[in-house]
Amino acid sequence: MNRRDFTSSRKLDHLRICLDEPIESGNTGFEDIRLVHEALPDIDMDSLSLNTRFLGHELGSPLFISAMTGGHPETKEVNAVLAEIAGEFGLGIGVGSQRAAIENPDLADTFSIVREKAPDTFIVGNLGIVQLKDHGIDWAERAVEMIDADALAIHLNFLQESIQPEGDHDASGCFTALRELCRELKVPVIVKETGCGISYETGLRCYGAGAACMDIGGYGGSSWALIESHRSGSVAGKENLQLKGLGERFGIWGIPTAVSLFEIEKCNGPVIASGGIRSGIDLAKALVLGADLAGMALPLLKPACEGPKALREVISTIHQELRICMFLTGKSRISELPEARWYVTGNTRDMIEK
Amino acid sequence: MNRRDFTSSRKLDHLRICLDEPIESGNTGFEDIRLVHEALPDIDMDSLSLNTRFLGHELGSPLFISAMTGGHPETKEVNAVLAEIAGEFGLGIGVGSQRAAIENPDLADTFSIVREKAPDTFIVGNLGIVQLKDHGIDWAERAVEMIDADALAIHLNFLQESIQPEGDHDASGCFTALRELCRELKVPVIVKETGCGISYETGLRCYGAGAACMDIGGYGGSSWALIESHRSGSVAGKENLQLKGLGERFGIWGIPTAVSLFEIEKCNGPVIASGGIRSGIDLAKALVLGADLAGMALPLLKPACEGPKALREVISTIHQELRICMFLTGKSRISELPEARWYVTGNTRDMIEK
Amino acid sequence: MNRRDFTSSRKLDHLRICLDEPIESGNTGFEDIRLVHEALPDIDMDSLSLNTRFLGHELGSPLFISAMTGGHPETKEVNAVLAEIAGEFGLGIGVGSQRAAIENPDLADTFSIVREKAPDTFIVGNLGIVQLKDHGIDWAERAVEMIDADALAIHLNFLQESIQPEGDHDASGCFTALRELCRELKVPVIVKETGCGISYETGLRCYGAGAACMDIGGYGGSSWALIESHRSGSVAGKENLQLKGLGERFGIWGIPTAVSLFEIEKCNGPVIASGGIRSGIDLAKALVLGADLAGMALPLLKPACEGPKALREVISTIHQELRICMFLTGKSRISELPEARWYVTGNTRDMIEK
Amino acid sequence: MNRRDFTSSRKLDHLRICLDEPIESGNTGFEDIRLVHEALPDIDMDSLSLNTRFLGHELGSPLFISAMTGGHPETKEVNAVLAEIAGEFGLGIGVGSQRAAIENPDLADTFSIVREKAPDTFIVGNLGIVQLKDHGIDWAERAVEMIDADALAIHLNFLQESIQPEGDHDASGCFTALRELCRELKVPVIVKETGCGISYETGLRCYGAGAACMDIGGYGGSSWALIESHRSGSVAGKENLQLKGLGERFGIWGIPTAVSLFEIEKCNGPVIASGGIRSGIDLAKALVLGADLAGMALPLLKPACEGPKALREVISTIHQELRICMFLTGKSRISELPEARWYVTGNTRDMIEK
Ligand SMILES: Cc1cc2nc3c(=O)[nH]c(=O)nc-3n(C[C@H](O)[C@H](O)[C@H](O)COP(=O)(O)O)c2cc1C
Ligand SMILES: Cc1cc2nc3c(=O)[nH]c(=O)nc-3n(C[C@H](O)[C@H](O)[C@H](O)COP(=O)(O)O)c2cc1C
Ligand SMILES: Cc1cc2nc3c(=O)[nH]c(=O)nc-3n(C[C@H](O)[C@H](O)[C@H](O)COP(=O)(O)O)c2cc1C
Ligand SMILES: Cc1cc2nc3c(=O)[nH]c(=O)nc-3n(C[C@H](O)[C@H](O)[C@H](O)COP(=O)(O)O)c2cc1C
Repeated sequence: MNRRDFTSSRKLDHLRICLDEPIESGNTGFEDIRLVHEALPDIDMDSLSLNTRFLGHELGSPLFISAMTGGHPETKEVNAVLAEIAGEFGLGIGVGSQRAAIENPDLADTFSIVREKAPDTFIVGNLGIVQLKDHGIDWAERAVEMIDADALAIHLNFLQESIQPEGDHDASGCFTALRELCRELKVPVIVKETGCGISYETGLRCYGAGAACMDIGGYGGSSWALIESHRSGSVAGKENLQLKGLGERFGIWGIPTAVSLFEIEKCNGPVIASGGIRSGIDLAKALVLGADLAGMALPLLKPACEGPKALREVISTIHQELRICMFLTGKSRISELPEARWYVTGNTRDMIEK
Repeated sequence: MNRRDFTSSRKLDHLRICLDEPIESGNTGFEDIRLVHEALPDIDMDSLSLNTRFLGHELGSPLFISAMTGGHPETKEVNAVLAEIAGEFGLGIGVGSQRAAIENPDLADTFSIVREKAPDTFIVGNLGIVQLKDHGIDWAERAVEMIDADALAIHLNFLQESIQPEGDHDASGCFTALRELCRELKVPVIVKETGCGISYETGLRCYGAGAACMDIGGYGGSSWALIESHRSGSVAGKENLQLKGLGERFGIWGIPTAVSLFEIEKCNGPVIASGGIRSGIDLAKALVLGADLAGMALPLLKPACEGPKALREVISTIHQELRICMFLTGKSRISELPEARWYVTGNTRDMIEK
Repeated sequence: MNRRDFTSSRKLDHLRICLDEPIESGNTGFEDIRLVHEALPDIDMDSLSLNTRFLGHELGSPLFISAMTGGHPETKEVNAVLAEIAGEFGLGIGVGSQRAAIENPDLADTFSIVREKAPDTFIVGNLGIVQLKDHGIDWAERAVEMIDADALAIHLNFLQESIQPEGDHDASGCFTALRELCRELKVPVIVKETGCGISYETGLRCYGAGAACMDIGGYGGSSWALIESHRSGSVAGKENLQLKGLGERFGIWGIPTAVSLFEIEKCNGPVIASGGIRSGIDLAKALVLGADLAGMALPLLKPACEGPKALREVISTIHQELRICMFLTGKSRISELPEARWYVTGNTRDMIEK
Repeated sequence: MNRRDFTSSRKLDHLRICLDEPIESGNTGFEDIRLVHEALPDIDMDSLSLNTRFLGHELGSPLFISAMTGGHPETKEVNAVLAEIAGEFGLGIGVGSQRAAIENPDLADTFSIVREKAPDTFIVGNLGIVQLKDHGIDWAERAVEMIDADALAIHLNFLQESIQPEGDHDASGCFTALRELCRELKVPVIVKETGCGISYETGLRCYGAGAACMDIGGYGGSSWALIESHRSGSVAGKENLQLKGLGERFGIWGIPTAVSLFEIEKCNGPVIASGGIRSGIDLAKALVLGADLAGMALPLLKPACEGPKALREVISTIHQELRICMFLTGKSRISELPEARWYVTGNTRDMIEK
């Protein structure tokens, strides 16, 4: 199996593990946040609007389908379903890392199916920051072109890389590459974590470099430390045992999503909250805390594998929950949610106090 | 089954579920509150008085029997028992929503039995705010007349409505209707939640509109989200499955009673604390925190179904507990209770700190 | 059984329940307090002294044997053992309520045995405040004379009284009686709670009335609500069922010992910490927080029933623990303990913060 | 068995208990501390350096092998393995108390093997403060010479001593002895606790006396109270039963490592964090909080008994974890770690707040 096939098949391993194993870790902090009920909302729930604008695009709701897949022939169908439903609801959607398809153009259709199925939707391309550093703006442009992307997410996943012996351990130069990309690329650049959250300081730095948006990818949802730990389990050998242990121990690493959101919100830039968003109630809390969109990955994976009907139902329910939260906080528009009041208790309170 | 019968039979479903299923959710916050013991009270417990005044009426105690039933022939007996005992003890009592009997006057006696059995008692009528908006002051007046009510509670139950597909989802115009009612109605208007609590802001708004009193109906006791979730379980079909899920997930929604009370108390108007009051100790805590009365629903339902003797005993015990709390905080009159000192810990402390 | 026999036999019931049933409730707050370790104490543990002065008396240690028994022939032996060991160690000791022996002088020897066995010890008489009010200084003087008491504890137990239908429910006039007693009695008066603690305000009031000392009797140790609840269980009948329930529900009532101590300490008078002191470590914490003595009842009861050898061992161990705590906080004298530093966390922290 | 043999064989008891019994107690506080993730570190993990300087020595990493053994023939092999690996990685290493070998020079090789196997390593001698007081600088110099030590740790273990009837209970004069030692000894003196932590005040005092470093030995890891409690269990007799009980009850005594570190850090002197450090993540947290080195004992004992291969693997993993933490906080040098940001929650937060 050469490098290209490896990247591609690893993608499949990850999907399987995410579908079958307990790969969620810790708490997002949203469980410590409680929205203040508005007993007398004075609005009509059925006529409130989930529509929102994001980076100049109109979206059907602030629910964002986070980057998950593509890059292996068997993932094409999953992306097709995700895109079909994204199109139906007018949701923003991210594709998984496009590296495999840039390395091997035969796989491009596993990504471009998204644009095909959702011609008018806000689609976000995806590339790892190390690939960006190694291959420069050229790969970034190819990623954008491949799916006619409206924005490009550069994902940061250094926890995942660092626990793997063969991972990309060199982050030096990445920030410079990011700054150049922001300057050159025609579409907005989203800086995206994948389970460890983004701190205030890093947020400031990235916005300063020209990033259009932070996608928090905070702690409390899918954990790449746990995913890699499970993956290592399937192969024997000492190196894998060490990876298994590291994965388990670093399963507690990261900034809880609510805490990261609280910090990034102070940077005053566009922000997607993600990592452990598990219901429309979580989504509402994220918006109240200042997120523009809230992304979900894992909870959409299983229904997407089942087909459009299952996914449609899941998303309808999430929308309904969001609608109820808006109604019960008396907000008829997404843009009003940040005015809702909230309580914060426990550890999350401790973490967000100055 | 036409609309009118439906409203009526749904009432019966609710009663049955409340009697049989675990429909209480979360904590009121009173468990985080501890009254400061007065080791040397210098008063006589047996001569202290539970009497109190509320909205110009003399009451035998600050225990209020919260709105529960009426509207189906089989509920008449329950209301009769509640009223008999309310009369005996001089307690204020609310009837359940009178909508069914306004829609179908044949049912009026299931409510008017309350006045019959308790001619001199402070009786509170009950109507949903959506019915008020839809039918105006006319229905409100009919509700008052039906039982010769001393006050009318307008209940807010938008969580319950919002999770039901066929619920009343339109709250717009409700506040205006409330303001008009307060201006026109001959008896005082009580704004009443039903399990989610009332925030400071909403309290201010309602008092400003002329409401005579807030009945908190806070989180931590009977949960309509759970009640509806259970009800949906008894019928098959997809819509019901969604309701079941929504009910479960929104079982955590609401402002805990103690927190809501703490907020409403700052509005400086009359207030009934309710939602999860489960003993005379809870009742005392509510009064110490500033409530004028404290309402109980669920804990009185079962004894009321058993008959006057059972209910009398339950209420005697609650009164005895309240008396002990007064004695052990050195307060010989209900009006002195707010001077008692208290400790607050944990999440409730976090929620009431500025 | 006439009144006098009843008082006496009830004493025996209480003893039996305390020996056999789980009658301890809640937390004292000492579990939230941690003494700062002194790694380099620079003192000699074996030559440090547990001696202390209290109300003008020299005591062998700050461990006080709290009031427990007397008043029934079968309790004489227990008091004999307690007194013998108190004498041996030079401990202060309180006798149980002397009411029974004042009502029935035949029982006086069950108390006077204490003075007999411990001629030189600091002995504290005991009378309920209601008896004081009802019978005035006369009974108080008889109590003192009966055992040649060095001080008289007036116990406050209104929780216990209040939950019993036949209890003394009238506390009015008690404070006046206390003030008069303090003015007239030849020996110092100790105001003593029995499981619910004393607040800052009550402490101020009692010191102001001339009380020489507060004996905290705080929440978190033996609970008279639970004791009475158990006692009610042994007799059938409705009244008893109600007592059982009240006892259980009021098992949570009271000011935790550490919190009460923290408050009373601010009154700047002599103070005995008691209620839930369960080891020499608790004792040390109490002294660090400002207590002059720390009293224990329940943990000494069982060994006292076994005999002097068992009690001697228990007290030796407590002393050894206290000695270790002094050593490990670098304090060679009891009077230096309040200078030790401590951490406070959790609910107790919340309760003692202003 | 004479005194010298006793000291020596007791060493062996301790080792066996540490290998077989649960002798860890409580929490270090590190579980309440969370490092802020740096999503975009901009450094190369594989080229970051674990090297650090400590007391003028170059070390391969800030992991310190805490004092454990020597003094019985059977422990020589364990020390040989520890030293071999310390040499390989360039780690600082402490030997166990050298008292037995000073009392009986035949045992000297169980310590000197460390210098033999690790000729260039930073080796720390070890002597109890009571031995220092009793035998003066002479024993200290013999301890240093025995292993050509680069520094001498004077250990404080008064909890362990105090709970044992035959323990050294006299700490008076110890501080003076320490001050003299610091003035006279040619190598730097480290003041070292063994499980109870060092307070700010004691730290200030020791630095003031000329100590070069504090080795915290805080609460939350190996507990000598529990070790002695277990040891007492193996022998019958009353004295042992008392020791067993005291050991259990004092198993909760001490300043949690993170809290002690927080205090000592304010003294601004060199500091080794130890006591309950259980992974490279704990190690990183300790460095972030201001430690220069972090010591581990118990987790290295079992692998050291298995042999160099097992120990090498354990230490490699710890180093890898530390490297990952540095990478994920964006610090490429050990000296930069204190600049990393951290959250603190719960009890530890309460304990470090002013
Ligand atoms: C199966 C799967 C594949 C993923 N692949 C990518 C990816 O290729 N690129 C990326 O930026 N994030 C990827 N992610 C991370 C998600 O976009 C998201 O940040 C993270 O899972 C947290 O959200 P969740 O808790 O809702 O799953 C993936 C997540 C999952 C579950
Ligand atoms: C069986 C039942 C029926 C109720 N019906 C009404 C109603 O018709 N109108 C209303 O305002 N509240 C109604 N409530 C709500 C109660 O008045 C009260 O606000 C709520 O149950 C919280 O109190 P609890 O925890 O003591 O039950 C009902 C509650 C129960 C348990
Ligand atoms: C069996 C028993 C009898 C007691 N009798 C009296 C009494 O007669 N008078 C009194 O002031 N306190 C009495 N007390 C209360 C104790 O003096 C003490 O205040 C209380 O038990 C709390 O301490 P503890 O938790 O160590 O038991 C008694 C306690 C017990 C356990
Ligand atoms: C088996 C064993 C023997 C020890 N012997 C000594 C000793 O002789 N001198 C000393 O200063 N500390 C000694 N210690 C204490 C350790 O150096 C360390 O301070 C303590 O164990 C806390 O670290 P840990 O939780 O990582 O074990 C010993 C610890 C263990 C586990």
